[in-house]
Amino acid sequence: MTIAYDGTHYGGWQIQSNTLSIQEVIEQVLFRLTQQQIPTIVSGRTDAGVHANGQVAHFESEKSISLKSLNSLLPPDIRILSLEEVDPSFHARFSVKEKIYRYHFCTSRVQSPFERGYTLHCLYPLNREEITSASTHFIGTHDFTSFANELDPRRDPVKTLFELSLIPTSSGFTLKFRGNGFLYKMVRNITGTLIDIGRGKLSEKCIPELLALKSRHKLSTTAPPHGLFLDSVVY
Amino acid sequence: MTIAYDGTHYGGWQIQSNTLSIQEVIEQVLFRLTQQQIPTIVSGRTDAGVHANGQVAHFESEKSISLKSLNSLLPPDIRILSLEEVDPSFHARFSVKEKIYRYHFCTSRVQSPFERGYTLHCLYPLNREEITSASTHFIGTHDFTSFANELDPRRDPVKTLFELSLIPTSSGFTLKFRGNGFLYKMVRNITGTLIDIGRGKLSEKCIPELLALKSRHKLSTTAPPHGLFLDSVVY
Repeated sequence: MTIAYDGTHYGGWQIQSNTLSIQEVIEQVLFRLTQQQIPTIVSGRTDAGVHANGQVAHFESEKSISLKSLNSLLPPDIRILSLEEVDPSFHARFSVKEKIYRYHFCTSRVQSPFERGYTLHCLYPLNREEITSASTHFIGTHDFTSFANELDPRRDPVKTLFELSLIPTSSGFTLKFRGNGFLYKMVRNITGTLIDIGRGKLSEKCIPELLALKSRHKLSTTAPPHGLFLDSVVY
Repeated sequence: MTIAYDGTHYGGWQIQSNTLSIQEVIEQVLFRLTQQQIPTIVSGRTDAGVHANGQVAHFESEKSISLKSLNSLLPPDIRILSLEEVDPSFHARFSVKEKIYRYHFCTSRVQSPFERGYTLHCLYPLNREEITSASTHFIGTHDFTSFANELDPRRDPVKTLFELSLIPTSSGFTLKFRGNGFLYKMVRNITGTLIDIGRGKLSEKCIPELLALKSRHKLSTTAPPHGLFLDSVVY
């Protein structure tokens, strides 16, 4: 299933004991429809407050479930956009070829009420040329350990970023990330570093140095979650 | 001042005794900043639930008021986008040359959670060619009495619509209205009629007939408020 969600009121994708998660809400609906505990496997968890236009998850069910019945029981801030039967070899996480994230910036003096939960409002000047130039250091295959939080030792920290581009929008700009995989908080940590470079607090020279360090202890700012969207997952 | 607001939680622009209005919230902030009752004059009121990207209002104040202080006291769903001193001859309603409204339709099978409060979700098929063809009957100078609610006898029901166009969007389409003035609920009544034509419930021939009637008693559907945005006002 392909899922869009407004992450504002959730503690992220993954089921946790102390907060309501998107996964829990969806699995509750699956239980209500089938009377069976059906675990969902997601392409990758998103953090508290992060949004998705095209998250993907799979599950196994003996009963047939319709898109309409799922959406009619889900809250309006979680929508299943499409639902299709897949080959048993398909795996929402292991079969991922490419993921696209977007981080939205509003650089207008006043942020539109329609963008308030979905763009980072930056009142300080941001040098777009510096950000664009610094972005090129991240493109390619790197060990991204320095830009990850809570690294899982079972996961490979070497990832390939195919694209990191700055796209102007009517109220500011968007950073588009396209890669074969992302470590925990990697997009927000890279974004935070690029903000610091755009503000003149860091020089782009720091990026090759940070990548070479392979240590997350020198991390600069982590950008807040509400500007981030998991845009789509390619299989 | 140019104002953007998410109309979801308000009873429209105009102060009313039984609901919270955008005007009341703004005038409360003006009072808090100046300790004076400062009435605002708007380009035209918007209904309960209608949104604005660029509403315009004027007021008179002996004290200087900053954009920042206004926004810091306003709720996040009302933002003053700009504030400028104008010539005393300026009048937010009488000086209007042109107003632009947009009505947003989502024709996807599932509505994105990010569009749910801002587009009309239409699950029935809508014939865009029929809507485009029918729209041309509204363009030009007409007595729009048949498409108005609660007609104010002091106001001229003859208005000129410069443009009524159907613009495709990623999730459906938008109807763009550009005219020298609009009667009460005129955009929503025209939109409702165009929906009925797009669904095949009405024929476009009814439009010249309805316009000629100059009576609001034959009105078809009024489109719901949440798809409508007052986009901008030109002076």
